[in-house]
Amino acid sequence: MQQYPSRLLERAVQAFSTLPGIGRKTALRLVLHMLRQSTDEVVQFAEAIATMKREVKYCRSCHNISDTDLCPICSDSRRDAATICVVENIQDVMAIENTMQFHGLYHVLGGLISPMDGVGPSDLQIDSLVQRVGEGQVKEVILALSSTMEGDTTNFYIFRKLAPTGVAVSVIARGIAVGNELEYTDEVTLGRSILNRTPFEGNEK
Amino acid sequence: MQQYPSRLLERAVQAFSTLPGIGRKTALRLVLHMLRQSTDEVVQFAEAIATMKREVKYCRSCHNISDTDLCPICSDSRRDAATICVVENIQDVMAIENTMQFHGLYHVLGGLISPMDGVGPSDLQIDSLVQRVGEGQVKEVILALSSTMEGDTTNFYIFRKLAPTGVAVSVIARGIAVGNELEYTDEVTLGRSILNRTPFEGNEK
Repeated sequence: MQQYPSRLLERAVQAFSTLPGIGRKTALRLVLHMLRQSTDEVVQFAEAIATMKREVKYCRSCHNISDTDLCPICSDSRRDAATICVVENIQDVMAIENTMQFHGLYHVLGGLISPMDGVGPSDLQIDSLVQRVGEGQVKEVILALSSTMEGDTTNFYIFRKLAPTGVAVSVIARGIAVGNELEYTDEVTLGRSILNRTPFEGNEK
Repeated sequence: MQQYPSRLLERAVQAFSTLPGIGRKTALRLVLHMLRQSTDEVVQFAEAIATMKREVKYCRSCHNISDTDLCPICSDSRRDAATICVVENIQDVMAIENTMQFHGLYHVLGGLISPMDGVGPSDLQIDSLVQRVGEGQVKEVILALSSTMEGDTTNFYIFRKLAPTGVAVSVIARGIAVGNELEYTDEVTLGRSILNRTPFEGNEK
């Protein structure tokens, strides 16, 4: 067990090493870096984190993180409110926004159904999705979840829940990644990409 | 440029990404991890860091980090006050303490002389070392600095500064690392380890 010369230092190192991917050595390095900074800088750092945690809100419609009651995407009238893209988490919203290919609204589930981790449908924002769709404005729900067992389970569950509403449900394309070589693509993905082939339009990228 | 859905989130991510070795992606991952924690946990994290920075002291004798005016090592009467080990920083104190081979006191310079980085002798705790030695109790000063250009320069500077006091000055052994194979050791180290050979005592480790 490492001996720290100071209890205060030890507490700060322990705090940092609770973060994912940060071990004791890295934590110590970060803390000693902070000791070299000005007190103002460090206090600002600590406040940015505490303030974020205390004040951050979640959009009441799509459950994305937001500073306001309704997030900037949901309150943007130029976006297509008839299309909802269902994603697992906030990072996924940011990733899809970065593609600039989607102009509808989102719905952030907050996880995927995973009986192994004790996550059931009631832990996720699925009921609120059904309710949102039930309000009648939505024409299409795009399921953009990970291509894993949990993602597939969640897709299927949502699909069944939405069936009575008659809304169109689609799932993002699965196939070989752009830029990837065929011989290095796994068989399942390759098989699916053949089954789900699309008409060639001459302007594919 | 990444678009964040929340200014508060963005500020927290920016705060984390000022830390060494933490880029925007890692910072976002850490911040989103904190969003999943309870407010209490996050506030405690922020406070541990701010409190450490605000309240941490440096030992008035050896300049090691400390919660008290005189650090636990300097105030430990069982330690040999006649031997001072000069190190660059706090991590080095911890590394040497972990060896459990040294029972004297330390002197933390706070850096190495490095004209390239604008660090001169006056930026380091060298005058206070000379003063400490001048008080007469110290019999030996062990220089335990990195085996680099900066370390060598600092060693030489301290050696000259201490010469008038008549104190014994030694430097930690440089040679092949324990467990290392000879053929992979660099020539300079190997050459030095031959020049600085020690009598074989039959119980070497």
